[in-house]
Amino acid sequence: MAYEFKLKKLVEFAETDAAGILHFSNYFRFMELTEHAFFRSLGFSVHGGTRPRIGWPRVHVKCDYLKPLNFEDLVEIQLLVKQKKSKAIEYQFIFRKISNGSAPLEVARGTMTAVCIGFDENGMIKGAIPIPDEISRKIESAPQELFE
Amino acid sequence: MAYEFKLKKLVEFAETDAAGILHFSNYFRFMELTEHAFFRSLGFSVHGGTRPRIGWPRVHVKCDYLKPLNFEDLVEIQLLVKQKKSKAIEYQFIFRKISNGSAPLEVARGTMTAVCIGFDENGMIKGAIPIPDEISRKIESAPQELFE
Amino acid sequence: MAYEFKLKKLVEFAETDAAGILHFSNYFRFMELTEHAFFRSLGFSVHGGTRPRIGWPRVHVKCDYLKPLNFEDLVEIQLLVKQKKSKAIEYQFIFRKISNGSAPLEVARGTMTAVCIGFDENGMIKGAIPIPDEISRKIESAPQELFE
Amino acid sequence: MAYEFKLKKLVEFAETDAAGILHFSNYFRFMELTEHAFFRSLGFSVHGGTRPRIGWPRVHVKCDYLKPLNFEDLVEIQLLVKQKKSKAIEYQFIFRKISNGSAPLEVARGTMTAVCIGFDENGMIKGAIPIPDEISRKIESAPQELFE
Repeated sequence: MAYEFKLKKLVEFAETDAAGILHFSNYFRFMELTEHAFFRSLGFSVHGGTRPRIGWPRVHVKCDYLKPLNFEDLVEIQLLVKQKKSKAIEYQFIFRKISNGSAPLEVARGTMTAVCIGFDENGMIKGAIPIPDEISRKIESAPQELFE
Repeated sequence: MAYEFKLKKLVEFAETDAAGILHFSNYFRFMELTEHAFFRSLGFSVHGGTRPRIGWPRVHVKCDYLKPLNFEDLVEIQLLVKQKKSKAIEYQFIFRKISNGSAPLEVARGTMTAVCIGFDENGMIKGAIPIPDEISRKIESAPQELFE
Repeated sequence: MAYEFKLKKLVEFAETDAAGILHFSNYFRFMELTEHAFFRSLGFSVHGGTRPRIGWPRVHVKCDYLKPLNFEDLVEIQLLVKQKKSKAIEYQFIFRKISNGSAPLEVARGTMTAVCIGFDENGMIKGAIPIPDEISRKIESAPQELFE
Repeated sequence: MAYEFKLKKLVEFAETDAAGILHFSNYFRFMELTEHAFFRSLGFSVHGGTRPRIGWPRVHVKCDYLKPLNFEDLVEIQLLVKQKKSKAIEYQFIFRKISNGSAPLEVARGTMTAVCIGFDENGMIKGAIPIPDEISRKIESAPQELFE
């Protein structure tokens, strides 16, 4: 049972903008990258890998920005499972800048809620479904004291 | 004094993902596009155009997704100034899919708070500053009954 | 029969990078935008709209960059059909910066070759196929003197 | 003296498009990622790190696409210095899909020419300049037989 995952990543040049910083929309790509790596760490892919096929569309996301990130900054994204529900998972993400010789510095914090959906035999979405047991049994909500 | 702006846009192919829909991070790019067009409609650019130079980093954004958007869907993004503060503006954005023969359909709703910052003579950020009067006098908060 | 199309577009903030200019990879997105608008101008979509379904994967692209483009620059992308073959179309794209009070300035030039592919009943690619007649009869190669 | 660098990367979900494959424009972002990692492997950053400041705008890029790449495919990008000139570097990039149990499969091949530029004391571009010796002495052209 897992409720946490950390991913480290350099800010790429194409992810910056003319203000010289990581474009604010890309924090959501970083959240998704971390979610997908979390799933892979559990042995399956966010898209495919289960039978029948499922999907995880986002229904709610948000982000608070504290400090900017620049090109080639090293950022650690910490995923925490804030709440595992029967048909959805709510994640919290904390972005920390990693520098030599100083403590990790929180630069942003976000949440993302993804709903588990199923498809019919024609590939059409048939709505939210319970998270398949093969996935659900590997994921748990993090202790609530982590979200003080 | 303005508090509203609408922008229409087709969903581009490069903005979709392998799930066949507009990637959820791109809604934030669409919000920004609309904010920038709103500023241009008032006669200045979000970046540059004022002396001394100012910037508008985002401190908080969120989005709720109701329905997916597909390639070449026509979407209207409605910007409303939810609250003009002395040093920041909070926007609300409503995304509506426009189809022939049916009423516009709300597909997503988000908010974005941008803070007005100033720079010193070396180009370094010197923190939040009051919105310059030349901008502030053209923007007002929308009537609160619009946010029921 | 058409062989030319022009699209005008502002450079968006999220399309710039920390060098303050339009990121070089985005010129290819602009080419694609123009190709898709060209197809729509002829009455069909690049993806879907024909029966049976076809696709247009790119097999070769290139771009020469002459001058940078900045945020909110207005750029006109001119598409020319350089060569319509039986199973592929080669396009040329010229990027021109549009400014008040001066002549359009060529800032980049590229080419893109897209191959028409078909799919079998399971949705698997079955390779290059002749361009369907409903499309082919609307597109022609531009006069070769346009490519001096 | 170095003339080669290899970078491995998973195809991210946000990098795919509604055709289910890596969007063709993103191959250029992957080339740039590899170039930047090559520079870091030599001890400096593509942007900054030298005094006075230099830049590396692209003047020519191209790519040939052989096979598509899908979400979570592992791709190795091989950079080769095709030609080091006094004021520019021409790179070749070979993209290979890495799969368990089969040989790496070439899926795309591209080139990129980047010119070394200098800036004046006001930060304005002053044109192409000779590659600074601290960089030039660490990079050499690859043996020409590698480009058969």
